[in-house]
Amino acid sequence: MPDNITDLEVRALVDGVNLSDGHPRMSLSPSQTEIVAGFAEIFAQTRKLPVDVVEKSSRSAFLSSIGQHGALADDVDFRSCYSSSTAIDMIGKAIRLADRPVVMVEPTFDNLHDLLAGHGLDIRSVAEAELATGPLEHLPPAHGVLFTVSPNNPTGTVLDEDRLHRIAAACADRDTVLVIDSCFRAQDLRAQYDMYAVLARYDLDWVIIEDTGKLWPLQELKAGFLNWNVGNPLPLARMYSDHMLSASPFILRVIELFADDGVHGGYDLLRNGLQSNRRLARNNIKLTPAYPDSRISVDTFRLPEGVTAGALYAELGEVGVHVLPGELFYWAQPHLGTDLIRISLARDPDSVVTGCQRVDQHLEAWRRVVIR
Amino acid sequence: MPDNITDLEVRALVDGVNLSDGHPRMSLSPSQTEIVAGFAEIFAQTRKLPVDVVEKSSRSAFLSSIGQHGALADDVDFRSCYSSSTAIDMIGKAIRLADRPVVMVEPTFDNLHDLLAGHGLDIRSVAEAELATGPLEHLPPAHGVLFTVSPNNPTGTVLDEDRLHRIAAACADRDTVLVIDSCFRAQDLRAQYDMYAVLARYDLDWVIIEDTGKLWPLQELKAGFLNWNVGNPLPLARMYSDHMLSASPFILRVIELFADDGVHGGYDLLRNGLQSNRRLARNNIKLTPAYPDSRISVDTFRLPEGVTAGALYAELGEVGVHVLPGELFYWAQPHLGTDLIRISLARDPDSVVTGCQRVDQHLEAWRRVVIR
Repeated sequence: MPDNITDLEVRALVDGVNLSDGHPRMSLSPSQTEIVAGFAEIFAQTRKLPVDVVEKSSRSAFLSSIGQHGALADDVDFRSCYSSSTAIDMIGKAIRLADRPVVMVEPTFDNLHDLLAGHGLDIRSVAEAELATGPLEHLPPAHGVLFTVSPNNPTGTVLDEDRLHRIAAACADRDTVLVIDSCFRAQDLRAQYDMYAVLARYDLDWVIIEDTGKLWPLQELKAGFLNWNVGNPLPLARMYSDHMLSASPFILRVIELFADDGVHGGYDLLRNGLQSNRRLARNNIKLTPAYPDSRISVDTFRLPEGVTAGALYAELGEVGVHVLPGELFYWAQPHLGTDLIRISLARDPDSVVTGCQRVDQHLEAWRRVVIR
Repeated sequence: MPDNITDLEVRALVDGVNLSDGHPRMSLSPSQTEIVAGFAEIFAQTRKLPVDVVEKSSRSAFLSSIGQHGALADDVDFRSCYSSSTAIDMIGKAIRLADRPVVMVEPTFDNLHDLLAGHGLDIRSVAEAELATGPLEHLPPAHGVLFTVSPNNPTGTVLDEDRLHRIAAACADRDTVLVIDSCFRAQDLRAQYDMYAVLARYDLDWVIIEDTGKLWPLQELKAGFLNWNVGNPLPLARMYSDHMLSASPFILRVIELFADDGVHGGYDLLRNGLQSNRRLARNNIKLTPAYPDSRISVDTFRLPEGVTAGALYAELGEVGVHVLPGELFYWAQPHLGTDLIRISLARDPDSVVTGCQRVDQHLEAWRRVVIR
């Protein structure tokens, strides 16, 4: 017997407050709602057009809308993927075939590490702070791959233009492929200098992943754009053609319309909404923000001594509040994350407030027991 | 400067007749058009429901609609993937981690082989005929994986129920994981006996891929369903969670509605359309059908002596007709496919007729030159 609507509503309630995954779950804006209202017409329109034309147009609109004009140069190759994870998995598969060692930023979202590790790659960790300010001469693995994330998740740290120049030069010197996951770029204007124009100035092999999946509450109607320099030694085109023909033209066109809407106020609305939710979260959870300067759609708090993230996570789950424990982001040294919890801000404000209040209440009770 | 509509129309014409890929590109039926007209409402509806509920409901509707009731048993685990290729790539990644040798059917669509080979797997070929009628005692690789496809692409060959029993028993005997790609199942009633019920009778590890991507002209709005027995030694759940959270609930609900439509006449319409296109193709290309009994959405012709598929493919491409050369399907022994070309039938009849007439005209001219 299939569930009926009442069953479903009960289930939704039982499911509680989900501040766990970073997938956007806030309401659509009025102009976004208008685009969705036109889904049937969009479908009819893209049916009549060659896929590669729709694909190119969508990517141009999206990447231009976040400042990445250099990505449209002739010596940049690209493919549209089901998601950024699909793109990253293809990169991992290609790295294994090319037999290159990897150095990857820590902390970062564990899936990035796990996707690559599933291919049996040799992955060494580099601390985000070291990548941001440390000496670079020996950092990129010679004939290997340096994998970083900007803005990084969960820290929100942005690789600035000057530092990117230095990293690009260091990678070029050591024949290191520089991979940058920029899935959160649209959420932070500081990340919107033209990264492709910077990389083009070096004799460098690089891969950049752009993504719409963190931005708009489109129920996983999204695409990841995999971009690389022509001549890149990773067999990305082949990994792609083994896997797929193209992202959905329908989805690509929806992305184009959302990007256009973004340029006409949608991105400001998005960023303002995230900042407002961040204030709400910080007002309601009486803990120190771990990354005060972050602008991406998650926020991370430092737990008081004696409270471990894993245990708190499990207990919160039992009362229907879903967050993420910090251990997950420290993929090589999980103990560095035991005093951190991450919440998602890509929700409606009332979810953020309700969730954060429950976290704080629970933390109070828990503290009273633990800290005697 | 972005392309305008005229540019696009010109491009569409230049692109010629695409009978190459198996992606469905025919027109929607009237009732399917009605579902698409409701896209905005579908989006609003699935927004309010928990994803796992939408996912379960969609899978139940789809698998039931093609006779696979046994798939809904409690000891069957499943995940919804972006596509069947995403599912197969996860299987390949899991096989590498489990370090199992693979035996794979030949001929079959080369992407299946390439997706697995990209993971560096040890893959041996077994002829489709041998799998269908040969001795089975030593066929499944001990502690390995037997990968087959039913209905197979391009042959349309269906593994019948009696033979599946024998293969399942042989795999169980040798601790072989049996993987069956059933992406074309909905197109052939002979493949719609309850495969899961058969496999449940053996102490067997198995994986079955079901797919909506070959059925409906939904511009890549599709899902692949990855199904396996609880206790399967391949780490599929982990490969999945590294990669994705769920298919799009919007897409899943569209699939459910298309499956419901399928049961109420849509599948008959689909199958009749394919058979009618097959007759048109066979009437217009004066060549022998290589697989006369096939019911799937492609058809394959045997070329006359002296004409090689690769060369014909290239020449047809130049005059704007896109087909596939048979070499691609014989992934271990490409020479076995040099006298075969495959065309897609998942098109509107006029495309099939135009494309086939051009193939035949070209073949005539070509023959006159070659066969002097």
